[in-house]
Amino acid sequence: QQEPAPAATPPPLLSAGPEGFSLSSADKQYQLKLRGILQSDARFFAQGKERAGNNTFLLRRFQPTFEGTVAGLVDFRLQMDLAPNAQPVQDGYVELHPVREFRVRVGKFKAPVGLERLQPVTAMLFPEFALPTSLVPNREVGIQFSGDLSGSVLSYAVGAFNGSPDGGAADLNVDDNVELEGRLFAHPFRKSTVEALKGLGLGLAGTVGSEYGTLGATQEPTLRAEGQQTFFTYLTGTTLDATVVASGRHYRLSPQAYYFHGPLGVMAEYATSTQDVRRGSDEARLTHGAWQLSASYVLFGGKASYEGVKPFHSLLPSEGHWGAVELGARYSGLRVDPKAFPLYADPSRSANEAQSWGAVAHWYLSGNARLTFSVERTAFSGGAADGGDRPTEIAFFNRVQASF
Amino acid sequence: QQEPAPAATPPPLLSAGPEGFSLSSADKQYQLKLRGILQSDARFFAQGKERAGNNTFLLRRFQPTFEGTVAGLVDFRLQMDLAPNAQPVQDGYVELHPVREFRVRVGKFKAPVGLERLQPVTAMLFPEFALPTSLVPNREVGIQFSGDLSGSVLSYAVGAFNGSPDGGAADLNVDDNVELEGRLFAHPFRKSTVEALKGLGLGLAGTVGSEYGTLGATQEPTLRAEGQQTFFTYLTGTTLDATVVASGRHYRLSPQAYYFHGPLGVMAEYATSTQDVRRGSDEARLTHGAWQLSASYVLFGGKASYEGVKPFHSLLPSEGHWGAVELGARYSGLRVDPKAFPLYADPSRSANEAQSWGAVAHWYLSGNARLTFSVERTAFSGGAADGGDRPTEIAFFNRVQASF
Amino acid sequence: QQEPAPAATPPPLLSAGPEGFSLSSADKQYQLKLRGILQSDARFFAQGKERAGNNTFLLRRFQPTFEGTVAGLVDFRLQMDLAPNAQPVQDGYVELHPVREFRVRVGKFKAPVGLERLQPVTAMLFPEFALPTSLVPNREVGIQFSGDLSGSVLSYAVGAFNGSPDGGAADLNVDDNVELEGRLFAHPFRKSTVEALKGLGLGLAGTVGSEYGTLGATQEPTLRAEGQQTFFTYLTGTTLDATVVASGRHYRLSPQAYYFHGPLGVMAEYATSTQDVRRGSDEARLTHGAWQLSASYVLFGGKASYEGVKPFHSLLPSEGHWGAVELGARYSGLRVDPKAFPLYADPSRSANEAQSWGAVAHWYLSGNARLTFSVERTAFSGGAADGGDRPTEIAFFNRVQASF
Repeated sequence: QQEPAPAATPPPLLSAGPEGFSLSSADKQYQLKLRGILQSDARFFAQGKERAGNNTFLLRRFQPTFEGTVAGLVDFRLQMDLAPNAQPVQDGYVELHPVREFRVRVGKFKAPVGLERLQPVTAMLFPEFALPTSLVPNREVGIQFSGDLSGSVLSYAVGAFNGSPDGGAADLNVDDNVELEGRLFAHPFRKSTVEALKGLGLGLAGTVGSEYGTLGATQEPTLRAEGQQTFFTYLTGTTLDATVVASGRHYRLSPQAYYFHGPLGVMAEYATSTQDVRRGSDEARLTHGAWQLSASYVLFGGKASYEGVKPFHSLLPSEGHWGAVELGARYSGLRVDPKAFPLYADPSRSANEAQSWGAVAHWYLSGNARLTFSVERTAFSGGAADGGDRPTEIAFFNRVQASF
Repeated sequence: QQEPAPAATPPPLLSAGPEGFSLSSADKQYQLKLRGILQSDARFFAQGKERAGNNTFLLRRFQPTFEGTVAGLVDFRLQMDLAPNAQPVQDGYVELHPVREFRVRVGKFKAPVGLERLQPVTAMLFPEFALPTSLVPNREVGIQFSGDLSGSVLSYAVGAFNGSPDGGAADLNVDDNVELEGRLFAHPFRKSTVEALKGLGLGLAGTVGSEYGTLGATQEPTLRAEGQQTFFTYLTGTTLDATVVASGRHYRLSPQAYYFHGPLGVMAEYATSTQDVRRGSDEARLTHGAWQLSASYVLFGGKASYEGVKPFHSLLPSEGHWGAVELGARYSGLRVDPKAFPLYADPSRSANEAQSWGAVAHWYLSGNARLTFSVERTAFSGGAADGGDRPTEIAFFNRVQASF
Repeated sequence: QQEPAPAATPPPLLSAGPEGFSLSSADKQYQLKLRGILQSDARFFAQGKERAGNNTFLLRRFQPTFEGTVAGLVDFRLQMDLAPNAQPVQDGYVELHPVREFRVRVGKFKAPVGLERLQPVTAMLFPEFALPTSLVPNREVGIQFSGDLSGSVLSYAVGAFNGSPDGGAADLNVDDNVELEGRLFAHPFRKSTVEALKGLGLGLAGTVGSEYGTLGATQEPTLRAEGQQTFFTYLTGTTLDATVVASGRHYRLSPQAYYFHGPLGVMAEYATSTQDVRRGSDEARLTHGAWQLSASYVLFGGKASYEGVKPFHSLLPSEGHWGAVELGARYSGLRVDPKAFPLYADPSRSANEAQSWGAVAHWYLSGNARLTFSVERTAFSGGAADGGDRPTEIAFFNRVQASF
């Protein structure tokens, strides 16, 4: 492309800096960005031996990524994750974008539902998701139509997907049914003259479909607290008579909101998931609900946003630059449908409610690197023998993150 | 490499455009190309619940790739595939190419046998391979010698490999035997003055070796129709007495031809695979055969070729460019050796013959993106209870493909 | 980054050549290197059918890598390996390097213990590691502090990690204990005026911790000879009463040295691993020891070093350049604690000692490509029925390696 060209083809462009690394043709019709995310954690628990998890170091995310554009009209994204227990393909999609108001995306990507789920993982306030995210889908495979109207005053996304268990990501359909999922999100005051209102976002998301599980793929979720210890599972066995499977309607609803202004960030999300389940000849329609409210404040050095804090300066003590520091807190809860017990879940092993409080501090060395310290305390109702409560979990997480 | 250099080292070259993204030294002795293929499918079946597969969305291929050259004499290619059920390493090879007439390739790569298999996957006429491809090897690990003689009038490739089950790719040898595989392919009229004959290619490929399977790795294939539903399996059990394993000679032969001229493309391939099998004390030499004939026509906007259609212009309606559109049809069949029944395969579950007809349409938005719609109907002989036939499969596939 | 910039931002830098392929900002604060290693092997054994392994071709390593720097202060490395049986993440770490004397590394990376393990895999003298490497950890997940003092006269590394079985790499902690690991390595004469002494390196490494295995993750190693055939395993069963698991203290010590001068290279390494094991109610503290001594000589065309031979010229026969050729030999041994038999290992299946001799030749086509031929003979004591010895293993390995 760059050898003695037939006259004046402008040379390709190279970019390397805080925004990442990329190659592109001079007319930007062909672009390739090389990206990566690396998160390395240390997890420690306050409790003794009776807890399920171990104190451990952990490579949490390892995500090299190719993304870009071909022929000026088709975007692509190949984001993998090779960390232990991660799905190897995170994002694998193609997007046609004739206009900003209408885009078509095909492949595997984040379902248009959860507020926290849709945030870039590099920007997550806490190392692990809040409880509502365990009731909404993770990645889905399918087709989505989306667009930004009136300069992002209103954004929409609606799609047809294979359908996943709550909190999960399924690569293949286990039944023949597609699941419809959609989300409306508004920044009603984006064009207002009142600066303090511009950063308010309000949304409503939902899914509707049917799911039928099998003995090998029950399509039922396992619920975990922020410390990643399981606190609720459906009953399983070696036969369908002893195993709870999805068996009919499945719908979710999630009102959600955020507000970002200067150093302040607030996010609120509620999610409810209703699903028909079956165990042998017993059937029920169960509804679980979860909620979270979080707030963060950038002490110095940057500005809060849904896409993450961008420090004004990278760390450079010799010039008095210390990056940015952000503090945050979160309250989160989840309530299991009481009808789940005891036919579909064992009350002496699965809790019926979890409530957690957490605090977090981030130090942004630059827009590409941050250190995180968090503590989160989750209390449970039920889940122990003789009607007792599962022991409270107190988890200390440290994270080092690099991204480009 | 590029800082204040000792005088006049010419700067490295960057390339970004329809041909992809690459870095290379000014003298082209060192090159790195960054490539990727993404295929996202939707599969729907006309039949009811009795079929094996599900309607599903599916990420079919997710293939980031590094390829290039070091020191001007060694090529390398690292092509992975992280899609579900794909082998993580597709191509992992090193090639020494002292001259065009003689190259040595070592590692894992496509076996030099099947015509459709050797075509770039981005150029495949139908979303899934025709039936002959299930009788020839997929990728093999080993060493290959190849070359193009007389300006590609004649090409040869011959190699020694671990050996794979029909249609399969084995990373490790399960016995001590290597399998010899080779292919001769001629373009007899490439240097002719008759333009219409230049695009004719004729070839003959084959393999010869011995294979001995084990209870854990039988080295026996599973045969699937284009809709990816299994229609033939050998008997398996928990002991060697109940399980069919490869047990001796294995050879394949595949005459093949193609013809490309202007908008027209035709491909024809026959494959036969003969293998000694054993189940307990029973032994037999079984020969399966398969064939396909396909034709395609570029309605407008491009030229047909074995490497795929390159549209004359990318989609740009404002200038009257609509990319390219291609239509195609395929007939394909496979006949299982009748001696396979009933000692080695169950006639009430495995069909003895499959025949399929299909039609396909492609819209090339550019050389880097295409949309595909196909339908394929496969009828079976045998494979159902009481001597009946397995139900006919009618599969509708859509595919969105991006590649660079 | 490169469009009509606000005045004179210097353009990013591109590099392509023997040192690899990279993009960086003009001030080098942001760098991305694209790397890869490909190793394709052929393994043949002299013995007959009674041996465990097969003659096979094998893709041994397939390692695309992103590495670089962001904001001038944080390095990152994402090295994957998709070869069969490899761990998908090899290196996944972030390193802060305020000064050369003090670096902090977090994530998954090579433990600071084994001399041969810490050598770049592209520089390994033999295709497979010597026996001491099977007693020291491979990769660990954790945090490490390291630095080079006085111009690498002394280097140190010390860290806290999850802990791994000998020779292994564990992604998650199976107990709550961290393992401390460290290494001191000196080049005492690096600043000497006696040229012949500068290349002498002496080191001492060790680990200390506690490990408690489970039925599913015993935390006990499997020992393999250079031909990759297992010659020692602990007893396992379906219950903890029949299975040997780690159960208490685990410490290792490894004195090590190398010497490189001109064409000559010598490496020596001793490793001892002591571990408390338990099987049912039986407990023991077992100590295994292993050693190796290797020497290599570059016949022509290059200079030996711990980081590998860099040929003076790439292969270019027309100018009389033939790359470089290196010959080497290695002696290696491992002795299992006699107390392991018969309570913890079966003397009729597991050998109590292995000793191996090997010879190797490398042809470096360039700094980026080499061909290797090796033979290694390993004799065993014990490991066969009736007090006999496991048959001697004679393994011929060929390797083709490309790296950038």
